[in-house]
Amino acid sequence: LENFDLPVGFFDRLADGAAAAIMPHFRSLSSVDNKAASGFDPVTVADRDAETAMRTLITESYPNHGIIGEEFGSDRPDAEAVWALDPIDGTRAFISGLPVWGTLIGLTHRSIPVLGMMAQHFTGERFAGGNGHAWYTGPGGPSDMATRSCASLADAVLFTTSPFLFHQTEVEAYRAVEQQTKLARYGVDCYAYCMVAAGHADLVIESGLKQHDIAGLIPVVEGAGGVVTDWQGGSAAGGGRIVAAGNRQVHDQALELLAKAPEA
Amino acid sequence: LENFDLPVGFFDRLADGAAAAIMPHFRSLSSVDNKAASGFDPVTVADRDAETAMRTLITESYPNHGIIGEEFGSDRPDAEAVWALDPIDGTRAFISGLPVWGTLIGLTHRSIPVLGMMAQHFTGERFAGGNGHAWYTGPGGPSDMATRSCASLADAVLFTTSPFLFHQTEVEAYRAVEQQTKLARYGVDCYAYCMVAAGHADLVIESGLKQHDIAGLIPVVEGAGGVVTDWQGGSAAGGGRIVAAGNRQVHDQALELLAKAPEA
Repeated sequence: LENFDLPVGFFDRLADGAAAAIMPHFRSLSSVDNKAASGFDPVTVADRDAETAMRTLITESYPNHGIIGEEFGSDRPDAEAVWALDPIDGTRAFISGLPVWGTLIGLTHRSIPVLGMMAQHFTGERFAGGNGHAWYTGPGGPSDMATRSCASLADAVLFTTSPFLFHQTEVEAYRAVEQQTKLARYGVDCYAYCMVAAGHADLVIESGLKQHDIAGLIPVVEGAGGVVTDWQGGSAAGGGRIVAAGNRQVHDQALELLAKAPEA
Repeated sequence: LENFDLPVGFFDRLADGAAAAIMPHFRSLSSVDNKAASGFDPVTVADRDAETAMRTLITESYPNHGIIGEEFGSDRPDAEAVWALDPIDGTRAFISGLPVWGTLIGLTHRSIPVLGMMAQHFTGERFAGGNGHAWYTGPGGPSDMATRSCASLADAVLFTTSPFLFHQTEVEAYRAVEQQTKLARYGVDCYAYCMVAAGHADLVIESGLKQHDIAGLIPVVEGAGGVVTDWQGGSAAGGGRIVAAGNRQVHDQALELLAKAPEA
Protein backbone atom coordinates (compact mmCIF):
# COMPACT_ATOMS: atom_id res chain seq x y z
CA LEU A 1 0.00 0.00 0.00
CA GLU A 2 2.89 2.32 -0.72
CA ASN A 3 0.77 4.85 -2.59
CA PHE A 4 -1.69 5.80 0.08
CA ASP A 5 -2.03 5.81 3.80
CA LEU A 6 -5.34 4.25 4.73
CA PRO A 7 -6.64 4.61 8.24
CA VAL A 8 -8.24 1.40 9.44
CA GLY A 9 -10.74 3.67 11.14
CA PHE A 10 -12.23 4.43 7.76
CA PHE A 11 -13.56 0.86 7.66
CA ASP A 12 -15.46 1.58 10.86
CA ARG A 13 -16.91 4.74 9.29
CA LEU A 14 -18.12 2.69 6.33
CA ALA A 15 -19.58 0.04 8.62
CA ASP A 16 -21.30 2.72 10.70
CA GLY A 17 -22.84 4.16 7.54
CA ALA A 18 -24.04 0.73 6.45
CA ALA A 19 -25.46 -0.01 9.90
CA ALA A 20 -27.48 3.19 9.93
CA ALA A 21 -29.04 2.28 6.59
CA ILE A 22 -29.65 -1.39 7.34
CA MET A 23 -30.76 -1.75 10.95
CA PRO A 24 -34.15 0.01 10.66
CA HIS A 25 -35.05 -2.72 8.13
CA PHE A 26 -33.77 -5.79 9.99
CA ARG A 27 -36.69 -7.85 11.26
CA SER A 28 -39.03 -5.46 9.51
CA LEU A 29 -41.43 -6.98 7.03
CA SER A 30 -41.94 -4.10 4.66
CA SER A 31 -38.78 -4.01 2.64
CA VAL A 32 -38.28 -7.44 1.14
CA ASP A 33 -38.56 -7.69 -2.60
CA ASN A 34 -37.26 -10.02 -5.25
CA LYS A 35 -34.25 -9.05 -7.32
CA ALA A 36 -34.66 -11.82 -9.85
CA ALA A 37 -37.87 -12.37 -11.76
CA SER A 38 -37.39 -16.12 -11.50
CA GLY A 39 -36.28 -17.85 -8.36
CA PHE A 40 -35.71 -16.28 -4.99
CA ASP A 41 -32.95 -13.70 -4.76
CA PRO A 42 -34.01 -11.34 -1.99
CA VAL A 43 -32.63 -7.87 -1.70
CA THR A 44 -33.86 -5.04 0.43
CA VAL A 45 -34.05 -1.32 0.50
CA ALA A 46 -31.47 -1.66 3.23
CA ASP A 47 -29.05 -3.27 0.81
CA ARG A 48 -29.27 -0.44 -1.68
CA ASP A 49 -29.24 2.38 0.88
CA ALA A 50 -26.23 0.88 2.65
CA GLU A 51 -24.23 0.57 -0.55
CA THR A 52 -25.10 4.15 -1.50
CA ALA A 53 -23.95 5.36 1.92
CA MET A 54 -20.63 3.54 1.62
CA ARG A 55 -20.04 4.63 -1.98
CA THR A 56 -20.64 8.25 -1.00
CA LEU A 57 -18.12 8.07 1.85
CA ILE A 58 -15.50 6.41 -0.36
CA THR A 59 -15.95 8.85 -3.21
CA GLU A 60 -15.63 11.81 -0.84
CA SER A 61 -12.47 10.52 0.83
CA TYR A 62 -10.79 8.59 -2.01
CA PRO A 63 -12.01 9.99 -5.33
CA ASN A 64 -9.40 8.04 -7.29
CA HIS A 65 -10.35 4.65 -5.94
CA GLY A 66 -12.47 2.14 -7.79
CA ILE A 67 -15.61 0.58 -6.32
CA ILE A 68 -17.22 -2.78 -7.03
CA GLY A 69 -20.56 -3.28 -5.30
CA GLU A 70 -23.20 -5.96 -5.20
CA GLU A 71 -26.04 -3.58 -5.93
CA PHE A 72 -24.68 -0.85 -8.19
CA GLY A 73 -21.92 -2.54 -10.17
CA SER A 74 -18.44 -1.25 -10.96
CA ASP A 75 -16.82 2.19 -11.01
CA ARG A 76 -13.17 2.31 -12.10
CA PRO A 77 -12.65 -1.43 -11.51
CA ASP A 78 -9.14 -1.13 -12.96
CA ALA A 79 -7.96 1.49 -10.48
CA GLU A 80 -4.92 0.67 -8.36
CA ALA A 81 -7.08 0.61 -5.23
CA VAL A 82 -10.55 -0.88 -5.51
CA TRP A 83 -13.23 -1.33 -2.86
CA ALA A 84 -15.45 -4.42 -2.91
CA LEU A 85 -18.76 -3.89 -1.10
CA ASP A 86 -21.50 -6.31 -0.15
CA PRO A 87 -23.90 -4.41 2.11
CA ILE A 88 -25.80 -7.51 3.25
CA ASP A 89 -23.99 -10.77 2.66
CA GLY A 90 -26.38 -13.53 3.70
CA THR A 91 -29.63 -11.97 2.56
CA ARG A 92 -31.46 -15.23 3.31
CA ALA A 93 -30.35 -15.06 6.95
CA PHE A 94 -31.29 -11.38 6.97
CA ILE A 95 -34.84 -11.92 5.79
CA SER A 96 -35.22 -14.87 8.21
CA GLY A 97 -34.26 -12.68 11.18
CA LEU A 98 -31.04 -14.58 11.98
CA PRO A 99 -28.00 -12.59 13.18
CA VAL A 100 -25.46 -14.31 10.91
CA TRP A 101 -25.47 -11.95 7.91
CA GLY A 102 -22.97 -9.13 7.60
CA THR A 103 -21.71 -6.10 5.75
CA LEU A 104 -18.56 -6.95 3.77
CA ILE A 105 -15.97 -4.29 3.01
CA GLY A 106 -12.82 -5.19 1.15
CA LEU A 107 -9.96 -3.12 -0.23
CA THR A 108 -7.81 -4.53 -2.99
CA HIS A 109 -4.49 -3.06 -4.07
CA ARG A 110 -3.44 -4.08 -7.59
CA SER A 111 -6.07 -6.86 -7.39
CA ILE A 112 -4.78 -8.25 -4.08
CA PRO A 113 -7.16 -8.01 -1.11
CA VAL A 114 -5.19 -6.14 1.56
CA LEU A 115 -7.73 -4.99 4.14
CA GLY A 116 -11.15 -6.35 4.97
CA MET A 117 -14.01 -6.23 7.45
CA MET A 118 -17.20 -8.10 8.21
CA ALA A 119 -19.62 -6.12 10.38
CA GLN A 120 -22.64 -7.78 12.04
CA HIS A 121 -24.74 -4.86 13.14
CA PHE A 122 -27.26 -6.71 15.34
CA THR A 123 -24.69 -8.42 17.57
CA GLY A 124 -22.40 -5.38 17.32
CA GLU A 125 -19.49 -7.46 16.08
CA ARG A 126 -16.76 -6.46 13.66
CA PHE A 127 -14.16 -8.88 12.32
CA ALA A 128 -11.32 -7.15 10.48
CA GLY A 129 -7.93 -8.04 9.09
CA GLY A 130 -4.97 -7.05 6.98
CA ASN A 131 -1.19 -6.72 7.00
CA GLY A 132 -0.74 -10.00 8.83
CA HIS A 133 -3.13 -9.20 11.65
CA ALA A 134 -6.81 -9.75 12.42
CA TRP A 135 -8.85 -8.11 15.11
CA TYR A 136 -12.32 -8.35 16.64
CA THR A 137 -14.63 -5.96 18.41
CA GLY A 138 -17.89 -7.10 19.95
CA PRO A 139 -19.84 -7.78 23.13
CA GLY A 140 -16.86 -9.55 24.74
CA GLY A 141 -14.60 -6.56 24.14
CA PRO A 142 -11.85 -6.12 21.55
CA SER A 143 -9.35 -8.88 20.88
CA ASP A 144 -6.83 -10.09 18.32
CA MET A 145 -7.98 -13.04 16.27
CA ALA A 146 -6.01 -16.19 15.50
CA THR A 147 -7.12 -19.38 13.81
CA ARG A 148 -6.97 -22.55 15.89
CA SER A 149 -4.88 -25.63 15.30
CA CYS A 150 -6.60 -28.61 13.72
CA ALA A 151 -4.60 -31.71 12.90
CA SER A 152 -6.82 -33.16 10.20
CA LEU A 153 -10.20 -33.10 8.48
CA ALA A 154 -11.40 -35.68 11.00
CA ASP A 155 -11.20 -33.00 13.70
CA ALA A 156 -12.57 -30.18 11.57
CA VAL A 157 -15.78 -28.16 11.86
CA LEU A 158 -16.88 -27.30 8.31
CA PHE A 159 -19.27 -24.59 7.13
CA THR A 160 -21.07 -24.21 3.85
CA THR A 161 -24.08 -22.08 2.98
CA SER A 162 -26.06 -25.05 1.69
CA PRO A 163 -25.08 -28.53 0.51
CA PHE A 164 -27.59 -28.01 -2.31
CA LEU A 165 -25.98 -24.90 -3.83
CA PHE A 166 -23.09 -26.73 -5.50
CA HIS A 167 -23.08 -27.36 -9.24
CA GLN A 168 -23.47 -31.01 -10.20
CA THR A 169 -19.80 -31.10 -11.16
CA GLU A 170 -18.90 -29.99 -7.63
CA VAL A 171 -21.17 -32.01 -5.37
CA GLU A 172 -19.09 -35.19 -5.33
CA ALA A 173 -15.89 -33.39 -4.34
CA TYR A 174 -17.67 -31.36 -1.67
CA ARG A 175 -19.30 -34.47 -0.19
CA ALA A 176 -15.96 -36.26 -0.10
CA VAL A 177 -14.64 -33.51 2.17
CA GLU A 178 -17.79 -33.26 4.29
CA GLN A 179 -17.81 -36.98 4.97
CA GLN A 180 -14.35 -36.76 6.50
CA THR A 181 -15.09 -33.83 8.81
CA LYS A 182 -16.27 -34.04 12.39
CA LEU A 183 -19.19 -31.66 11.91
CA ALA A 184 -20.76 -29.80 8.99
CA ARG A 185 -22.86 -26.70 9.53
CA TYR A 186 -25.19 -25.10 6.96
CA GLY A 187 -26.92 -21.78 6.59
CA VAL A 188 -24.02 -19.45 7.28
CA ASP A 189 -22.43 -17.09 4.77
CA CYS A 190 -19.79 -14.50 5.69
CA TYR A 191 -20.10 -15.30 9.39
CA ALA A 192 -18.57 -18.71 8.68
CA TYR A 193 -15.26 -17.19 7.51
CA CYS A 194 -15.17 -15.05 10.64
CA MET A 195 -15.65 -18.09 12.87
CA VAL A 196 -12.64 -19.68 11.16
CA ALA A 197 -10.62 -16.49 11.64
CA ALA A 198 -11.61 -16.30 15.31
CA GLY A 199 -10.62 -19.92 15.95
CA HIS A 200 -14.09 -21.40 16.49
CA ALA A 201 -14.25 -23.45 13.28
CA ASP A 202 -11.81 -24.84 10.73
CA LEU A 203 -13.08 -24.85 7.18
CA VAL A 204 -15.44 -23.08 4.75
CA ILE A 205 -16.20 -24.47 1.30
CA GLU A 206 -18.39 -22.63 -1.18
CA SER A 207 -18.80 -22.09 -4.89
CA GLY A 208 -20.32 -19.50 -7.18
CA LEU A 209 -19.05 -16.55 -5.13
CA LYS A 210 -18.67 -13.09 -6.61
CA GLN A 211 -15.69 -10.85 -5.95
CA HIS A 212 -17.67 -8.77 -3.44
CA ASP A 213 -18.61 -11.96 -1.55
CA ILE A 214 -15.02 -12.84 -0.73
CA ALA A 215 -12.68 -9.83 -1.13
CA GLY A 216 -13.50 -8.43 2.30
CA LEU A 217 -13.05 -11.82 4.00
CA ILE A 218 -9.69 -12.91 2.62
CA PRO A 219 -7.66 -10.39 4.70
CA VAL A 220 -9.61 -11.39 7.81
CA VAL A 221 -8.94 -15.12 7.49
CA GLU A 222 -5.35 -14.66 6.26
CA GLY A 223 -4.61 -12.01 8.88
CA ALA A 224 -5.65 -14.50 11.55
CA GLY A 225 -3.28 -17.16 10.17
CA GLY A 226 -5.60 -18.99 7.79
CA VAL A 227 -5.46 -19.86 4.10
CA VAL A 228 -7.99 -18.89 1.41
CA THR A 229 -7.74 -20.12 -2.19
CA ASP A 230 -9.91 -21.41 -4.97
CA TRP A 231 -10.40 -25.19 -5.37
CA GLN A 232 -7.28 -25.42 -7.49
CA GLY A 233 -5.12 -23.66 -4.92
CA GLY A 234 -5.05 -20.40 -6.89
CA SER A 235 -6.12 -16.90 -5.91
CA ALA A 236 -9.55 -16.55 -4.33
CA ALA A 237 -9.68 -12.81 -4.92
CA GLY A 238 -11.98 -12.99 -7.92
CA GLY A 239 -14.54 -15.28 -6.30
CA GLY A 240 -15.73 -18.59 -7.75
CA ARG A 241 -15.03 -21.82 -5.88
CA ILE A 242 -13.60 -21.02 -2.47
CA VAL A 243 -11.92 -23.04 0.27
CA ALA A 244 -10.89 -21.22 3.44
CA ALA A 245 -9.14 -23.02 6.28
CA GLY A 246 -7.66 -22.16 9.64
CA ASN A 247 -4.36 -23.75 8.81
CA ARG A 248 -2.42 -25.24 5.91
CA GLN A 249 -2.80 -28.88 6.97
CA VAL A 250 -6.57 -28.87 6.79
CA HIS A 251 -6.47 -26.69 3.68
CA ASP A 252 -4.17 -29.16 1.91
CA GLN A 253 -6.38 -32.11 2.82
CA ALA A 254 -9.50 -30.37 1.58
CA LEU A 255 -7.78 -29.14 -1.58
CA GLU A 256 -6.66 -32.64 -2.50
CA LEU A 257 -10.31 -33.72 -2.68
CA LEU A 258 -11.77 -30.50 -4.11
CA ALA A 259 -9.23 -30.22 -6.94
CA LYS A 260 -10.79 -33.35 -8.46
CA ALA A 261 -14.01 -31.48 -9.28
CA PRO A 262 -14.21 -30.94 -13.05
CA GLU A 263 -14.77 -27.46 -14.42
CA ALA A 264 -18.45 -26.70 -14.97
CA LEU B 1 -52.30 -22.79 36.88
CA GLU B 2 -54.83 -22.55 39.70
CA ASN B 3 -52.59 -24.25 42.26
CA PHE B 4 -49.67 -21.89 42.24
CA ASP B 5 -48.86 -18.32 41.44
CA LEU B 6 -45.77 -18.28 39.29
CA PRO B 7 -43.93 -15.04 38.73
CA VAL B 8 -42.69 -14.75 35.19
CA GLY B 9 -39.66 -13.06 36.69
CA PHE B 10 -38.54 -16.45 37.96
CA PHE B 11 -37.84 -17.45 34.35
CA ASP B 12 -35.43 -14.54 34.11
CA ARG B 13 -33.71 -15.67 37.32
CA LEU B 14 -33.26 -19.13 35.82
CA ALA B 15 -31.96 -17.67 32.56
CA ASP B 16 -29.56 -15.42 34.48
CA GLY B 17 -28.24 -18.45 36.36
CA ALA B 18 -27.76 -20.36 33.12
CA ALA B 19 -26.05 -17.39 31.46
CA ALA B 20 -23.53 -17.06 34.29
CA ALA B 21 -22.60 -20.73 33.93
CA ILE B 22 -22.50 -20.81 30.14
CA MET B 23 -21.01 -17.57 28.86
CA PRO B 24 -17.45 -18.06 30.18
CA HIS B 25 -17.34 -21.18 27.98
CA PHE B 26 -18.85 -19.77 24.77
CA ARG B 27 -16.16 -19.41 22.09
CA SER B 28 -13.72 -21.02 24.49
CA LEU B 29 -11.95 -24.11 23.26
CA SER B 30 -11.34 -25.92 26.52
CA SER B 31 -14.69 -27.33 27.42
CA VAL B 32 -15.89 -29.39 24.50
CA ASP B 33 -16.13 -33.11 25.02
CA ASN B 34 -18.16 -35.92 23.54
CA LYS B 35 -21.21 -37.22 25.33
CA ALA B 36 -21.67 -40.27 23.16
CA ALA B 37 -18.93 -42.81 22.65
CA SER B 38 -19.93 -43.20 19.01
CA GLY B 39 -20.86 -40.31 16.80
CA PHE B 40 -20.64 -36.64 17.58
CA ASP B 41 -22.87 -35.44 20.41
CA PRO B 42 -21.08 -32.49 21.95
CA VAL B 43 -21.84 -31.28 25.41
CA THR B 44 -19.90 -28.86 27.52
CA VAL B 45 -19.09 -28.12 31.10
CA ALA B 46 -21.31 -25.12 30.54
CA ASP B 47 -24.27 -27.39 29.81
CA ARG B 48 -23.91 -29.30 33.05
CA ASP B 49 -23.15 -26.27 35.24
CA ALA B 50 -26.10 -24.36 33.82
CA GLU B 51 -28.55 -27.19 34.46
CA THR B 52 -27.23 -27.55 38.00
CA ALA B 53 -27.71 -23.83 38.59
CA MET B 54 -31.29 -23.94 37.32
CA ARG B 55 -32.16 -27.11 39.24
CA THR B 56 -30.86 -25.55 42.44
CA LEU B 57 -32.98 -22.44 41.98
CA ILE B 58 -36.11 -24.46 41.22
CA THR B 59 -35.63 -26.83 44.13
CA GLU B 60 -35.16 -23.90 46.51
CA SER B 61 -38.24 -22.02 45.32
CA TYR B 62 -40.56 -24.86 44.29
CA PRO B 63 -39.59 -28.01 46.19
CA ASN B 64 -42.73 -29.87 45.09
CA HIS B 65 -42.16 -29.34 41.38
CA GLY B 66 -40.73 -31.98 39.09
CA ILE B 67 -37.72 -31.37 36.82
CA ILE B 68 -36.78 -32.99 33.53
CA GLY B 69 -33.39 -31.95 32.23
CA GLU B 70 -31.21 -32.80 29.27
CA GLU B 71 -28.14 -33.49 31.35
CA PHE B 72 -29.31 -34.93 34.66
CA GLY B 73 -32.55 -36.74 33.85
CA SER B 74 -35.85 -36.67 35.71
CA ASP B 75 -36.87 -35.80 39.26
CA ARG B 76 -40.59 -36.22 40.09
CA PRO B 77 -41.63 -36.30 36.42
CA ASP B 78 -45.21 -37.08 37.49
CA ALA B 79 -45.60 -33.96 39.63
CA GLU B 80 -48.44 -31.57 38.77
CA ALA B 81 -45.91 -28.91 37.73
CA VAL B 82 -42.80 -30.06 35.91
CA TRP B 83 -39.91 -28.01 34.55
CA ALA B 84 -38.23 -29.03 31.29
CA LEU B 85 -34.68 -27.71 30.98
CA ASP B 86 -32.26 -27.70 28.08
CA PRO B 87 -29.32 -25.53 29.11
CA ILE B 88 -27.81 -25.36 25.61
CA ASP B 89 -30.17 -26.27 22.81
CA GLY B 90 -28.15 -26.18 19.62
CA THR B 91 -24.86 -27.51 20.94
CA ARG B 92 -23.52 -27.73 17.39
CA ALA B 93 -24.10 -23.99 16.91
CA PHE B 94 -22.57 -23.39 20.33
CA ILE B 95 -19.33 -25.21 19.59
CA SER B 96 -19.13 -23.51 16.18
CA GLY B 97 -19.33 -20.06 17.77
CA LEU B 98 -22.69 -19.13 16.20
CA PRO B 99 -25.18 -17.08 18.24
CA VAL B 100 -28.24 -19.22 17.40
CA TRP B 101 -28.23 -21.67 20.35
CA GLY B 102 -30.27 -20.99 23.47
CA THR B 103 -31.25 -22.00 26.98
CA LEU B 104 -34.72 -23.56 26.99
CA ILE B 105 -36.93 -23.35 30.05
CA GLY B 106 -40.42 -24.84 30.00
CA LEU B 107 -43.04 -25.29 32.67
CA THR B 108 -45.75 -27.88 32.20
CA HIS B 109 -48.89 -28.09 34.30
CA ARG B 110 -50.55 -31.52 34.20
CA SER B 111 -48.42 -32.31 31.14
CA ILE B 112 -49.45 -29.17 29.24
CA PRO B 113 -46.69 -26.61 28.50
CA VAL B 114 -47.97 -23.36 30.00
CA LEU B 115 -44.95 -21.05 30.20
CA GLY B 116 -41.71 -21.08 28.27
CA MET B 117 -38.59 -19.12 27.47
CA MET B 118 -35.67 -19.28 25.09
CA ALA B 119 -32.70 -17.18 26.21
CA GLN B 120 -29.79 -16.38 23.86
CA HIS B 121 -27.11 -15.09 26.16
CA PHE B 122 -24.66 -13.73 23.56
CA THR B 123 -27.15 -11.48 21.77
CA GLY B 124 -28.93 -10.77 25.07
CA GLU B 125 -32.28 -11.89 23.69
CA ARG B 126 -35.11 -13.59 25.54
CA PHE B 127 -38.22 -14.95 23.83
CA ALA B 128 -40.96 -15.93 26.27
CA GLY B 129 -44.60 -16.90 26.17
CA GLY B 130 -47.62 -18.27 27.97
CA ASN B 131 -51.26 -17.56 28.78
CA GLY B 132 -51.97 -16.35 25.27
CA HIS B 133 -49.13 -13.86 25.13
CA ALA B 134 -45.54 -13.83 23.94
CA TRP B 135 -42.93 -11.23 24.68
CA TYR B 136 -39.37 -10.36 23.67
CA THR B 137 -36.49 -8.56 25.29
CA GLY B 138 -33.28 -7.83 23.41
CA PRO B 139 -31.07 -5.20 21.81
CA GLY B 140 -34.04 -3.51 20.14
CA GLY B 141 -35.87 -3.14 23.46
CA PRO B 142 -38.82 -5.11 24.82
CA SER B 143 -41.80 -5.90 22.63
CA ASP B 144 -44.78 -8.19 22.33
CA MET B 145 -44.43 -10.94 19.77
CA ALA B 146 -46.95 -11.98 17.15
CA THR B 147 -46.61 -14.40 14.28
CA ARG B 148 -47.01 -12.99 10.78
CA SER B 149 -49.61 -13.83 8.22
CA CYS B 150 -48.63 -16.21 5.45
CA ALA B 151 -51.20 -17.29 2.90
CA SER B 152 -49.60 -20.54 1.77
CA LEU B 153 -46.52 -22.74 1.75
CA ALA B 154 -45.45 -21.00 -1.45
CA ASP B 155 -44.84 -17.83 0.59
CA ALA B 156 -43.31 -19.57 3.61
CA VAL B 157 -39.82 -19.40 5.07
CA LEU B 158 -39.07 -22.85 6.53
CA PHE B 159 -36.45 -23.84 9.09
CA THR B 160 -35.06 -27.23 9.95
CA THR B 161 -31.88 -28.16 11.79
CA SER B 162 -30.61 -30.31 8.94
CA PRO B 163 -32.26 -31.96 5.95
CA PHE B 164 -30.10 -34.99 6.74
CA LEU B 165 -31.37 -35.59 10.28
CA PHE B 166 -34.70 -37.10 9.24
CA HIS B 167 -35.32 -40.83 9.45
CA GLN B 168 -35.65 -42.55 6.09
CA THR B 169 -39.37 -42.88 6.69
CA GLU B 170 -39.61 -39.11 7.12
CA VAL B 171 -37.43 -37.68 4.36
CA GLU B 172 -39.96 -37.93 1.56
CA ALA B 173 -42.68 -36.11 3.49
CA TYR B 174 -40.26 -33.42 4.65
CA ARG B 175 -38.97 -32.85 1.11
CA ALA B 176 -42.52 -32.59 -0.20
CA VAL B 177 -43.06 -29.64 2.14
CA GLU B 178 -39.67 -28.06 1.52
CA GLN B 179 -40.17 -28.12 -2.24
CA GLN B 180 -43.31 -26.03 -1.89
CA THR B 181 -41.81 -23.34 0.34
CA LYS B 182 -40.21 -20.11 -0.79
CA LEU B 183 -37.04 -20.59 1.23
CA ALA B 184 -35.59 -23.32 3.46
CA ARG B 185 -32.96 -22.53 6.07
CA TYR B 186 -30.76 -25.07 7.86
CA GLY B 187 -28.56 -25.09 10.95
CA VAL B 188 -30.94 -23.48 13.42
CA ASP B 189 -32.45 -25.20 16.45
CA CYS B 190 -34.50 -23.37 19.10
CA TYR B 191 -33.83 -20.00 17.49
CA ALA B 192 -35.98 -21.09 14.54
CA TYR B 193 -39.12 -21.39 16.69
CA CYS B 194 -38.46 -17.93 18.10
CA MET B 195 -38.17 -16.45 14.61
CA VAL B 196 -41.61 -17.92 13.83
CA ALA B 197 -43.00 -16.50 17.08
CA ALA B 198 -41.52 -13.09 16.34
CA GLY B 199 -42.99 -13.02 12.83
CA HIS B 200 -39.76 -13.33 10.83
CA ALA B 201 -40.37 -16.88 9.52
CA ASP B 202 -43.32 -19.21 9.04
CA LEU B 203 -42.54 -22.85 9.64
CA VAL B 204 -40.27 -25.23 11.57
CA ILE B 205 -40.21 -28.97 10.87
CA GLU B 206 -38.10 -31.37 12.92
CA SER B 207 -38.10 -34.93 14.17
CA GLY B 208 -36.49 -36.88 16.98
CA LEU B 209 -36.98 -34.12 19.55
CA LYS B 210 -36.97 -34.83 23.27
CA GLN B 211 -39.45 -33.26 25.68
CA HIS B 212 -36.84 -30.75 26.90
CA ASP B 213 -36.18 -29.70 23.28
CA ILE B 214 -39.73 -28.48 22.73
CA ALA B 215 -41.59 -27.90 26.01
CA GLY B 216 -40.10 -24.45 26.52
CA LEU B 217 -40.86 -23.39 22.94
CA ILE B 218 -44.52 -24.39 22.63
CA PRO B 219 -45.83 -21.56 24.88
CA VAL B 220 -43.66 -19.05 22.98
CA VAL B 221 -44.98 -20.00 19.54
CA GLU B 222 -48.57 -20.51 20.71
CA GLY B 223 -48.53 -17.35 22.82
CA ALA B 224 -47.56 -15.41 19.68
CA GLY B 225 -50.46 -16.88 17.72
CA GLY B 226 -48.82 -19.92 16.15
CA VAL B 227 -49.59 -23.63 16.15
CA VAL B 228 -47.31 -26.45 17.33
CA THR B 229 -48.22 -30.14 16.95
CA ASP B 230 -46.67 -33.45 16.03
CA TRP B 231 -46.85 -34.64 12.40
CA GLN B 232 -50.24 -36.23 13.03
CA GLY B 233 -51.72 -33.04 14.47
CA GLY B 234 -51.51 -34.30 18.06
CA SER B 235 -49.78 -32.83 21.08
CA ALA B 236 -46.15 -31.79 20.63
CA ALA B 237 -45.50 -31.66 24.36
CA GLY B 238 -43.68 -34.99 24.52
CA GLY B 239 -41.32 -34.29 21.64
CA GLY B 240 -40.90 -36.52 18.59
CA ARG B 241 -41.86 -35.21 15.15
CA ILE B 242 -42.68 -31.53 15.38
CA VAL B 243 -44.29 -29.00 13.04
CA ALA B 244 -44.59 -25.41 14.25
CA ALA B 245 -46.23 -22.73 12.12
CA GLY B 246 -47.06 -19.08 12.44
CA ASN B 247 -50.69 -19.64 11.49
CA ARG B 248 -53.18 -22.42 10.96
CA GLN B 249 -53.29 -22.17 7.16
CA VAL B 250 -49.61 -22.95 6.70
CA HIS B 251 -49.75 -25.52 9.50
CA ASP B 252 -52.63 -27.35 7.81
CA GLN B 253 -50.85 -27.39 4.45
CA ALA B 254 -47.66 -28.77 5.98
CA LEU B 255 -49.54 -31.30 8.07
CA GLU B 256 -51.34 -32.69 5.05
CA LEU B 257 -47.98 -33.67 3.55
CA LEU B 258 -46.22 -34.66 6.79
CA ALA B 259 -49.02 -36.93 8.02
CA LYS B 260 -48.20 -39.28 5.12
CA ALA B 261 -44.86 -40.22 6.66
CA PRO B 262 -45.06 -43.80 7.98
CA GLU B 263 -44.09 -44.54 11.57
CA ALA B 264 -40.45 -45.50 11.93
